[in-house]
Amino acid sequence: MLCIEVWVTGRFLSILRNPAICPLRNSVVESADLIIHARWIVPIRPANTVLNDHAIVVKAGKIAALGPSENINSQYSAAKNITLSDHVLMPGLINAHGHAAMTLLRGLADDLPLMEWLNDHIWPAEGRWVSGEFVSAGATLAMAEMLRTGTTTFSDMYFFPEATAKAAADIGMRCQIATPILDFPSGWAANAEEYIHKGVALADEYRHSELIQVAFGPHAPYTVSDAPMKQVATLANQMDAQIQIHLHETAFEVQDAQSKSGMRPSERLNALGLLTANTQCVHVTQLNDRDKQIIQESGAHIIHCPESNLKLASGICPIQDCLNAGINVALGTDGAASNNNLDMFGELQTAALLAKAQQNDASAVDAFTALELATINGARALGQEQTLGSLETGKWADMIAIDFSALELQPVYHVLSHLAYAVSAHHVSHSWVAGQNKLSDGKLTNIDTGQLGKLIQDWQRKISVASG
Amino acid sequence: MLCIEVWVTGRFLSILRNPAICPLRNSVVESADLIIHARWIVPIRPANTVLNDHAIVVKAGKIAALGPSENINSQYSAAKNITLSDHVLMPGLINAHGHAAMTLLRGLADDLPLMEWLNDHIWPAEGRWVSGEFVSAGATLAMAEMLRTGTTTFSDMYFFPEATAKAAADIGMRCQIATPILDFPSGWAANAEEYIHKGVALADEYRHSELIQVAFGPHAPYTVSDAPMKQVATLANQMDAQIQIHLHETAFEVQDAQSKSGMRPSERLNALGLLTANTQCVHVTQLNDRDKQIIQESGAHIIHCPESNLKLASGICPIQDCLNAGINVALGTDGAASNNNLDMFGELQTAALLAKAQQNDASAVDAFTALELATINGARALGQEQTLGSLETGKWADMIAIDFSALELQPVYHVLSHLAYAVSAHHVSHSWVAGQNKLSDGKLTNIDTGQLGKLIQDWQRKISVASG
Repeated sequence: MLCIEVWVTGRFLSILRNPAICPLRNSVVESADLIIHARWIVPIRPANTVLNDHAIVVKAGKIAALGPSENINSQYSAAKNITLSDHVLMPGLINAHGHAAMTLLRGLADDLPLMEWLNDHIWPAEGRWVSGEFVSAGATLAMAEMLRTGTTTFSDMYFFPEATAKAAADIGMRCQIATPILDFPSGWAANAEEYIHKGVALADEYRHSELIQVAFGPHAPYTVSDAPMKQVATLANQMDAQIQIHLHETAFEVQDAQSKSGMRPSERLNALGLLTANTQCVHVTQLNDRDKQIIQESGAHIIHCPESNLKLASGICPIQDCLNAGINVALGTDGAASNNNLDMFGELQTAALLAKAQQNDASAVDAFTALELATINGARALGQEQTLGSLETGKWADMIAIDFSALELQPVYHVLSHLAYAVSAHHVSHSWVAGQNKLSDGKLTNIDTGQLGKLIQDWQRKISVASG
Repeated sequence: MLCIEVWVTGRFLSILRNPAICPLRNSVVESADLIIHARWIVPIRPANTVLNDHAIVVKAGKIAALGPSENINSQYSAAKNITLSDHVLMPGLINAHGHAAMTLLRGLADDLPLMEWLNDHIWPAEGRWVSGEFVSAGATLAMAEMLRTGTTTFSDMYFFPEATAKAAADIGMRCQIATPILDFPSGWAANAEEYIHKGVALADEYRHSELIQVAFGPHAPYTVSDAPMKQVATLANQMDAQIQIHLHETAFEVQDAQSKSGMRPSERLNALGLLTANTQCVHVTQLNDRDKQIIQESGAHIIHCPESNLKLASGICPIQDCLNAGINVALGTDGAASNNNLDMFGELQTAALLAKAQQNDASAVDAFTALELATINGARALGQEQTLGSLETGKWADMIAIDFSALELQPVYHVLSHLAYAVSAHHVSHSWVAGQNKLSDGKLTNIDTGQLGKLIQDWQRKISVASG
C-alpha cells in the first residue's frame, strides 16, 4: 500500500491521493483555529476568480489553506467552523487614506470648495476641539463604521496619532498611522521638528506591532517647507518607512506652487527625494504627462479619493490612465467631513463609474479592477502586498463576508459585477482581522456601541453649541 | 367665555386659543387614521426646512395636518399612532425613470458601452425571455427593492406594461406606466400602431386609478419614426397624458441623427410637437445651448440618471446649468441592468457629487437641491406636483422614515446634509403610500419575500443556463 502526502506551503500535496488506499488519511488531519466555508470566495489573486463552495483555513491569524470545501473537510479540523451559505468571502477592504477622528465633524460644513471649507470651518473647529480625547472618540467611531462596512485596514493621517494607534490596537484593527508633519503649530506639536520627533517616537513604540504600521505624513506641499520634507525623505529611507502626502489635490495648489516656485509640486517633491516606491500620493486630481512620468518612474503610488474630490469640486484623478502607465492606484474615503461616510463599497463603485465617464469608455475600471483598487492595490501602496490584500496561503486572515441573500442582490449572474455595482455596505455581514472576528451577522463583536454612542453625543453637544 | 376655532384647510385656525378658557377643546378633537410623530420632519416645502418634534396627521390617505407634536396631540386622535424618536420623516422618493422588470437582468452584462450592451446582450436576452410573467416577477422584485430603499413612486417604461401596472396595483405602490412605443416588433406588439393602441387601452383601464398613471413612452428618437411620434403628440394632448422619452442619451445618437436628417433629436421632436410641459426627457447627456433653449421654452422636464450614464459612459447631464435655466430636473435610476441597483439615496448622492465636479463648483446641487431632485421635482415632472413630492396638507401621505440612530450617521449637525451625503438606503426604516404602511422597521409589509425569492431563483436558473 502506498500513501504519500507532503505538507507544502500550507496545503497537502498529494503524491498519491486515492482515499481507498490511504486508510490512515484521517489520522494526519491537520488542526487549525478556524475554518470558514463560503458559497463563493473571491480571493483577488488569482485575478478575476470566483471559487464556488470553497473554504479557508486559519491558523495563528494567517491563511493556512484555501480549497474546495470537501477537500478542506478531509484535511483539517478546527476549533471553530463557520458556514456562510449565501455569502461571498473576500479580502477585507483597505481604506488607504483618511482622517478617522474627523467623523466627529461629519456634515459640519458642506457644499464648499476645499480652501473655504478648510479655512473657515474645519481648521477653526479643529483648533478649538482637537485633543487626545477627541481623536480617541472619533477614531473609535470611524473604526466602528469601517468594520461594519467591510474595511479591515485603514490609513490615517491626523493629530494625536498615538490616540488613533492606541484605539486601533485596543480594537484589533489593522492600520497605517501616517504621523502628521506641518510647518505650523497645532495642539499636538509646535513645529516641523517636533512633529517629526514625535512621529519617530511613535514608530519606535509600534516597531514590533503586527497590526500598526507607523509612517510619515507630511501634510501637503503647501504646508511643509523644503527642510522638513528632506528630513522626512532621509528618515523614511533609513527606517524603510512609508510616506503619505496630499498631492495635487486642486488646480489652485498646482498653479499657486508654479507661480511661487516655478515648479509643480510633483517636480519639487521629486527634487527633494520624497517620491519613492514607499510614497503614497493622495488625491492627484491634477496630472499632466510630466507628473505622470515622475510618479511612474519613482514607483510612488496614487491614493484615489473620488467622493471627496467630487464633493469639494477638486477634480477627478484619471485613474485608468495611471493604471495603464503602470502606476499602482489604491482607494480611500478621505475623512468623514468631506465624504460624508467611510463606506469603501460606495467608494469603489463611484471610482468605477466615474472612470468610465472620464475615459469615455464603459470598459474603463471594470468590476474586478474596482475590487483590486480596494484590496491588493491598497496592500501594495502600504508596502504590505506580501501579507495583505488577497486571500492566499501565508497572508493574514483579514477577510470579510458579504451576504448575497438580500432581494436587492437577486438574481446573481456574475459575483464580481455584484460586488462592484450592486452591493451596499450594509450587505457586509462578517469581518476578521488576523483571524479575529470583528463583525458577526452585522454586529460588532468588541466595540461597546452603546457606550460609544453616548460619548459621540457628548462631543456633538459641545461642538454644536460652539458652532451655533 | 369665548372660544372660537375654525377648521380651515385641514387645520384648526384658533381665533382665540387660550386652553384655560376653552374647556370644550377636547370635545372638538378631530379623528384621523394615523398620526406619526418624528424627531425631525423634512417637508421639502417650505424649502430648506427641518422641523423638530413635529407630527403628521393622515386621513383617507392624505395629509390632514402637520404641526408641532404637542399641538397635534391636543387637536387630533387617531386609530394608529407611531412615534419615530430617532427618525427623519420626509416625502417618499420618486424614481422618475426606470425599467422595473429589468431587475431580472441585473448584472447580466457590465463594462460595455450603450449600443454594444443593448445590441449584444440586453436585446437578445429580452427577445428570448420577456413575457407577461417575466415582467410581473421582475417588476415585483423592483418594487420590493424600491420600497425598501425609500422610493414610493416610480416611473416605468417596459414591455407588457399591464403586468407592471397590475403588480403595482396589487402591492399598492404609486407609479407612472409609460407604455412603450417602437417602430419594430416585440413580444408585446407588432408595430407602432399596435403599441399605441395597447397603450391607449391601458390608460383607459386605469383612468380612475389613484395610484397608477398611464403615460406614453415612445422609446427614443432613433427607434420611433415621425408618424407615430406625431400621433403620440396628438393623443397625449387630447388625453392630457404625459410622455416619457429617452433623449440625447449619447453623443452617437445626436451625431447619427444630425448626419441622417440634419437635425438634432431635440429639434426634430420639437418640430413634431412632442416637447411640451407634459414631456419628460430622459438622460440628456448631450446638451448644447440650442437644446437647452428648446427644452426650457417647451416646459419639458429632464430626468437625470447619473449612475446609468456613467456606467455606460454615455456622458453627464449638466443639471446645475439646466436648473439655472429654469428647467425642471428630476432623478431616476434607470433599469437595474445598467446601474445595478434601484437605490435613490445613492443616486441623489451621485447626482450631487457629480454636479460639483462638472461645474467646478462645490456649491452646485447642494444637499437640499439633491433632495428636491428626488422628491418635488419628480412630482412636477410626472405632472403630479399638486398631490405629491412634499409633505403638505392635502397631498397624498406618501412618506418615508430614515433611522438616524445608526453609528455611521453620528454625530448629527445638519439633517439635510446627512440625507444627501451620509444616509444609505438601508437606513430607510418605514414607508407609506397614501397612508398605507408598506415598510415597517425595514420589513416589507405586504410582499411575500420568501415566495418572491423562489420565483426570482427560477428565472435566474433559466436565464443563466441560456446565457451560460
